[in-house]
Amino acid sequence: MGQKIFSAMLMIGLPVSIAGSILHWPSLLMFAVYCLTIIALASFMGRATESLAIISGPRIGGLLNATFGNAVELIISIFSLKAGLVGIVLASLTGSVIGNLLLVSGASFFLGGIKYKRQKFNVFDARHNAGLLTFGVLVAFIIPEVFAGEMEESNQMVMSTGISIILICLYLAALFFKLVTHRGVYQRKEESFAEEETEEAEWSKKWSIMVLALATVAVAYVSENLVHTFEDVGNQLGWSELFIGVIIVAIVGNAAEHASAIIFAYKNKMDIAVEIAVGSTLQVAMFVAPVLVLVSLLFETQMPLVFTLPELVAMVLSVFLMIVITNDGETNWFEGLTLLAAYLVMGIGFFLL
Amino acid sequence: MGQKIFSAMLMIGLPVSIAGSILHWPSLLMFAVYCLTIIALASFMGRATESLAIISGPRIGGLLNATFGNAVELIISIFSLKAGLVGIVLASLTGSVIGNLLLVSGASFFLGGIKYKRQKFNVFDARHNAGLLTFGVLVAFIIPEVFAGEMEESNQMVMSTGISIILICLYLAALFFKLVTHRGVYQRKEESFAEEETEEAEWSKKWSIMVLALATVAVAYVSENLVHTFEDVGNQLGWSELFIGVIIVAIVGNAAEHASAIIFAYKNKMDIAVEIAVGSTLQVAMFVAPVLVLVSLLFETQMPLVFTLPELVAMVLSVFLMIVITNDGETNWFEGLTLLAAYLVMGIGFFLL
Amino acid sequence: MGQKIFSAMLMIGLPVSIAGSILHWPSLLMFAVYCLTIIALASFMGRATESLAIISGPRIGGLLNATFGNAVELIISIFSLKAGLVGIVLASLTGSVIGNLLLVSGASFFLGGIKYKRQKFNVFDARHNAGLLTFGVLVAFIIPEVFAGEMEESNQMVMSTGISIILICLYLAALFFKLVTHRGVYQRKEESFAEEETEEAEWSKKWSIMVLALATVAVAYVSENLVHTFEDVGNQLGWSELFIGVIIVAIVGNAAEHASAIIFAYKNKMDIAVEIAVGSTLQVAMFVAPVLVLVSLLFETQMPLVFTLPELVAMVLSVFLMIVITNDGETNWFEGLTLLAAYLVMGIGFFLL
Repeated sequence: MGQKIFSAMLMIGLPVSIAGSILHWPSLLMFAVYCLTIIALASFMGRATESLAIISGPRIGGLLNATFGNAVELIISIFSLKAGLVGIVLASLTGSVIGNLLLVSGASFFLGGIKYKRQKFNVFDARHNAGLLTFGVLVAFIIPEVFAGEMEESNQMVMSTGISIILICLYLAALFFKLVTHRGVYQRKEESFAEEETEEAEWSKKWSIMVLALATVAVAYVSENLVHTFEDVGNQLGWSELFIGVIIVAIVGNAAEHASAIIFAYKNKMDIAVEIAVGSTLQVAMFVAPVLVLVSLLFETQMPLVFTLPELVAMVLSVFLMIVITNDGETNWFEGLTLLAAYLVMGIGFFLL
Repeated sequence: MGQKIFSAMLMIGLPVSIAGSILHWPSLLMFAVYCLTIIALASFMGRATESLAIISGPRIGGLLNATFGNAVELIISIFSLKAGLVGIVLASLTGSVIGNLLLVSGASFFLGGIKYKRQKFNVFDARHNAGLLTFGVLVAFIIPEVFAGEMEESNQMVMSTGISIILICLYLAALFFKLVTHRGVYQRKEESFAEEETEEAEWSKKWSIMVLALATVAVAYVSENLVHTFEDVGNQLGWSELFIGVIIVAIVGNAAEHASAIIFAYKNKMDIAVEIAVGSTLQVAMFVAPVLVLVSLLFETQMPLVFTLPELVAMVLSVFLMIVITNDGETNWFEGLTLLAAYLVMGIGFFLL
Repeated sequence: MGQKIFSAMLMIGLPVSIAGSILHWPSLLMFAVYCLTIIALASFMGRATESLAIISGPRIGGLLNATFGNAVELIISIFSLKAGLVGIVLASLTGSVIGNLLLVSGASFFLGGIKYKRQKFNVFDARHNAGLLTFGVLVAFIIPEVFAGEMEESNQMVMSTGISIILICLYLAALFFKLVTHRGVYQRKEESFAEEETEEAEWSKKWSIMVLALATVAVAYVSENLVHTFEDVGNQLGWSELFIGVIIVAIVGNAAEHASAIIFAYKNKMDIAVEIAVGSTLQVAMFVAPVLVLVSLLFETQMPLVFTLPELVAMVLSVFLMIVITNDGETNWFEGLTLLAAYLVMGIGFFLL
């Protein structure tokens, strides 16, 4: 049923997007249309990636998910960078991190927890992820922030480039660890059974690749137009650039994750729900963000890995809260509510900035 | 025996308080008298609340404890707010948080640990509390601090009000979680036995309510006078407003908790000792503090939820230390000593500010 | 074999050091010679301390290790203090903390993890250490930093002295806890066996003491000369004082730990490898640093316990990462790599400052 809605959204959204961008329809209207169209396109990219992943087996599949999982966000961000909107890109990265950690996880823990009293997930994965979050967000984002303040400006980009390369390398090493050297090592017994279910790909390899290619082109086209509505929308609704980036762009860019994490939580498959939320965060912090820093070297305005203080603090606190809450491999509705409350606190803060 | 001492303290303290405040006796003397009288009154309020809680059953009892547990602190703070002493209120909230986490827990872990080699408590509660501490102190106090620095002043009170409402709602949700939906879910086996002991209320319902009402009025009267001695005492002893708030007011306002937590630790009932110390911290952070922010909207000088940097850092570090130490559901004398040492380090800092 | 190399290094290094310092050979050359000579001397001090520890039994042995373990670092630092190089001393303390936590542990987890899929160590020790790290680095280093900013300068030294005394007392209490009151209480079963192996001392008591005394004198002599090459080396290689202190001095001062931790990890004796890395960190933070603060009271330039912001942040993040990674009592190659990556990120930062 969800798929039909997305198909309809796309059938209407794409032509309207094209027409509106040529005929210069009102920014506020087009902003909404672009957002919905991207959400619909993201769902198709998700299905195509999923099919490809099943066809190519777990290792290549894992890699595909890791690279295409945040393709939409990557594309929107590259067009923002090209337009010189470095502030919005950093804000939307922040938004992805706190959105995935607090909003996606929070909603899935809360809704899943209403149905089941105690939901469990693999505690080894939680701890592995805790280490990565600590590295990817705390170490790799706080260090450049603090050191940049006492550094010549020319060195900031050198430092950001170096740290970005380290982030990408460690991210690839994490995939190697998970998919090759320690595959299944930390699995719980009941999981190994589930593993045996052979999933069937929805689409053929050829069709998946075609959908992926077409959707990517469409997302790129719509994103470029979306980016240019930000200023008008901000002025008309009284939203700051920061709020648009942290809250709006992040929700649009991660709509697909939201939906699927909640569905898995509701089916009591918490391992997958957590993996989507935290995995997506790690992808943003350790892959999308550093890739954008490196890509920005090609553009006029370069993007150092230096967030504003509110952005950095919001991400760091989200990581702490997530680690403390998932540390025991169990969730309940109250833990979900706590995460949602933290998102609300930060949302109020960003709105009033 | 303790009760006789408190009765005597009250019998002497209350008349002297009244006489001294009318006859304008020296501030330093009256400061001491007021403090001791409040400690005595607090012990009576504690016994009355306890009796009422037993009579009304665990659910209403939990609520009663949650609201009256820090009644003394709330009353002193409201009078301080009325007198425009926002700085002292924030300082005494800080003092309660670090006092409960470091001094109360530290003393009870240390003294209990001298008697028993390893003391255990419910690790689920510890983790549940860790999540709440992370939200209530880290997220809800750090966000306004950091964001306020980059915000127009008029927005600070809006943000503080919003966050305060969220804090109170989540605190009530936590009570609902603990007393209704997940009551007993995380209990250890040996605990369910202990639960069966039927406690008997010391006082009747009527008598309890009367004591509570009278003591509240008396605390209010003495508190109002106490607040007005702060300036003189600070000048005469060379203590800063901050030191009086963080160390002195906090010790007076939490004397009751100190005594009972230590007694329970000494009886090896660590679940209760930890619950008193951490529960009281959460009450202050998630209930007393936000209520005071909302109450201050009625007064001339409003109180944003924005602490000074030393206060905030002291609270955050106390939370970290507490989480790291209680994370394994076990304590020993050395962990208690570590908490006490941290309190001493912070005490030195606040004294020299 | 390692021992032969060290003997050779010493045989050549010591005479060259003496000749070079008298004949004023080029600073860059002598800097290298001094560093290598100190590393060789440190290995002899290590063997002497080890022998003495075995001869005097576990309690006195533990004390000996605790005091002489960082003797080299202490000696270099005292000469730096005497020369007024407070900045370099603080930097080298920082370097020891992050070097032990990230580089030593990282290398031993990584290399050990390549050989063994999962390496385990005593989780009780890990948690005990986590509490000490939180106190010794987070509380005792962050508080003076934050409070010093709002304090009259004359009070900074008073605060630093007070906190230093507390640190030393708690460090001694930790030894008392580990060697006396809770000796063996948290031991795993398989460990108690290993304990029974009676180790034999390499050297006699007399010989050990003589080696220790001679090596200490030699280290002192070489260190004093080393300190005076820092400025020239910095100018010639374009290294900042901070980089020399944090990275170079720290590696020289801790070379012995590096070697032995990696060897133990490779033998799958992770308890000892972790103990060396974390124990050495705690020694630096809770014993060497405060002793240096107190010693500096005798010199012209006094050293408050106030690091620069980049130093403090680097140490705090190292502690977080270490706690999150060791919290489960297990390591693998990827966790080691994560620690090494964090060291690299910080190294880039300090190099570019």
